[in-house]
Amino acid sequence: MGMRGPFTGGHAVRAAKVTSMASQTPAHPAQEQQVPNAISMDELQLAARNHAMPLEALRYPITPAGLHYLLIHFDIPDGEAASFQLTIDGLVERPIVLSLADLQARPVVALPVTLECAGNGRALMEPRAISQPWLREAIGTAEWTGTPLAPILKEAGIRPGAVEIVFTGMDHGIQGGIEHDYQRSLSLDEALGDDVLLAYAMNGAPLAPQHGYPLRLIVPGWYGMTHVKWLRRITAVDTPFKGFQQAGTYLYQTSSDDPGVPVTRMVPRSLMEPPGYPDFMTRARFLHAGPCTLQGRAWSGLGLITRVEISTDGGQSWQDATLGESPSSSPYAWRPWTFDWQATPGTHDLCSRATDSAGNTQPLDIPWNVGGYMNNAVQHVPVTVS
Amino acid sequence: MGMRGPFTGGHAVRAAKVTSMASQTPAHPAQEQQVPNAISMDELQLAARNHAMPLEALRYPITPAGLHYLLIHFDIPDGEAASFQLTIDGLVERPIVLSLADLQARPVVALPVTLECAGNGRALMEPRAISQPWLREAIGTAEWTGTPLAPILKEAGIRPGAVEIVFTGMDHGIQGGIEHDYQRSLSLDEALGDDVLLAYAMNGAPLAPQHGYPLRLIVPGWYGMTHVKWLRRITAVDTPFKGFQQAGTYLYQTSSDDPGVPVTRMVPRSLMEPPGYPDFMTRARFLHAGPCTLQGRAWSGLGLITRVEISTDGGQSWQDATLGESPSSSPYAWRPWTFDWQATPGTHDLCSRATDSAGNTQPLDIPWNVGGYMNNAVQHVPVTVS
Repeated sequence: MGMRGPFTGGHAVRAAKVTSMASQTPAHPAQEQQVPNAISMDELQLAARNHAMPLEALRYPITPAGLHYLLIHFDIPDGEAASFQLTIDGLVERPIVLSLADLQARPVVALPVTLECAGNGRALMEPRAISQPWLREAIGTAEWTGTPLAPILKEAGIRPGAVEIVFTGMDHGIQGGIEHDYQRSLSLDEALGDDVLLAYAMNGAPLAPQHGYPLRLIVPGWYGMTHVKWLRRITAVDTPFKGFQQAGTYLYQTSSDDPGVPVTRMVPRSLMEPPGYPDFMTRARFLHAGPCTLQGRAWSGLGLITRVEISTDGGQSWQDATLGESPSSSPYAWRPWTFDWQATPGTHDLCSRATDSAGNTQPLDIPWNVGGYMNNAVQHVPVTVS
Repeated sequence: MGMRGPFTGGHAVRAAKVTSMASQTPAHPAQEQQVPNAISMDELQLAARNHAMPLEALRYPITPAGLHYLLIHFDIPDGEAASFQLTIDGLVERPIVLSLADLQARPVVALPVTLECAGNGRALMEPRAISQPWLREAIGTAEWTGTPLAPILKEAGIRPGAVEIVFTGMDHGIQGGIEHDYQRSLSLDEALGDDVLLAYAMNGAPLAPQHGYPLRLIVPGWYGMTHVKWLRRITAVDTPFKGFQQAGTYLYQTSSDDPGVPVTRMVPRSLMEPPGYPDFMTRARFLHAGPCTLQGRAWSGLGLITRVEISTDGGQSWQDATLGESPSSSPYAWRPWTFDWQATPGTHDLCSRATDSAGNTQPLDIPWNVGGYMNNAVQHVPVTVS
């Protein structure tokens, strides 16, 4: 699984100066203002398109279609299976073109994988980067079915000198002032990982248009931007890829002068299915006194989840939750947890905190950064019990 | 189809004074402020859960699962088919309890129906009601499969004195300061309409949890709040239903002193699939000069769509678009339209305007009202052609 701590995976800090997403986006009034607790119309436009997973859906080990989070940079392409071709080219001995039927005729792997947007929790930061304003629900776990990438790369024959593999989607638009097809790269080592898949099915059905139909990349353990949707081309290159989605964004910067470190794998996180029932507008939660089993799920891209702790007093004291099995025992899918609680009248601030096998634990405070990435701060679920 | 103009369907204006949704919701800071072009965190919480249909999905005659809009007032219930029971009771001769298998054994109807949230366009109003902040994409068209309601009501035997049928969902929470199960009513005449369905499938598959699994009501032509999801009980009553979702909200009020008129059927609307490609953040559209087929869909709950006009100058001049057939020729599903346009360099403000067989036409100006309902103002799609 290539476990390792955050930022220690051998990524060189890029020499090129890169600035924040907000300052790179074309001049627009909304980008000039950073108003805590007031969302701009630009952000709302994105929030209307790109939906999170309602947290009651934590009850499902595999997220049903339509509840899995979505982040679509440009438009959903009008992908077509019949005419689809995947090209493997660049620094390879034998360029390959594969149809969807070719891919489906290859060895089949089905793997539950938890995905999370790198910007999950962005809108909880102050000030926040102006981009998709996620709260904390940009998550989902699907069973992805496809064929391993590594054997295809080996058949093509990666030539000496190749250092990265670039993945190109069909989606096209402008971001950071640059017109481009969506592209991301992986190091040769990462791309040749055993569990990297070319996926053509999700939860046993062909990919939905919004999830990459007909083909997408799955790189278990990595944040969502890596799992290139509407994948059409895989190219071996001899220099590190510097496209916008790789070098111009998805960087963890502690200040706008900081060149930043690429965002890669998911840091550990736990979320709770909010107990009781909600108020429509405020989403405040109400609950009747008595026994209540708190439950949720936890995941990490840096290791296996080894511990989840629960607090009912806002993080002052903690008790261990009981861990269950990941769906199909996948090391890349969230683990369920439960905690038996006696709900007493009054208000309570419920929290859960996950720790992984690499020793990473969720922080209580939000790890602020320029682009609003990797916010795995402990969730608070205030409830009123009567 | 019961065609008629807006507000002429025989609904008495309610004598009871009702105030706006915003002022009925429990006191909360966000409700005190009406800040144009700045969305509160409460509104963002709703926008993160309740997603619209990205407008490029107008390309599909039947909206794929997961792209159809969703408005969920409370939590998605954990519906279960095996133990499911639908109760028909109240003022009936023979109360009936039906399992899902009982319902599926009855006559089957599959019908494409366009749904739209009554609050679609709310966030474009100034000032706007504080609620789910829809822009203009709270729409979708699915093929709903189920069994007609009317024969079941006739088998139960509606007793003299019954005036309305109340539909109760499994979803439960607080809105307007009132704890309740989601409930809506229809007049006896409306409930006995030929095309009112108890639907257990969407696009050929069992309902997704978020669309009402295992059973929901479909009332073709009406705004979304009518199509009660997670339906568990159908009750004949002898007085008009006054529950919160019927009498406390979904009212078209021209001022907060106006008792208002119930929101019922969808007014005509047309939307365009935005041409070209977008900027990620602003969603501004860019396009290359040359021939461009503009396309979109139009619908009305008050009649059949008889005309769609296109403007490329922001509504100053109009030309007729070509109308196509609704999916499966359903009178309740949107009609596609196309318009061949020569895109010339510069900026253009593209608009479409629908007219229905009852003579209703989309307005150019937003029809402001307290709760932010029924905003069917003409859409503007600014494009930059180069």
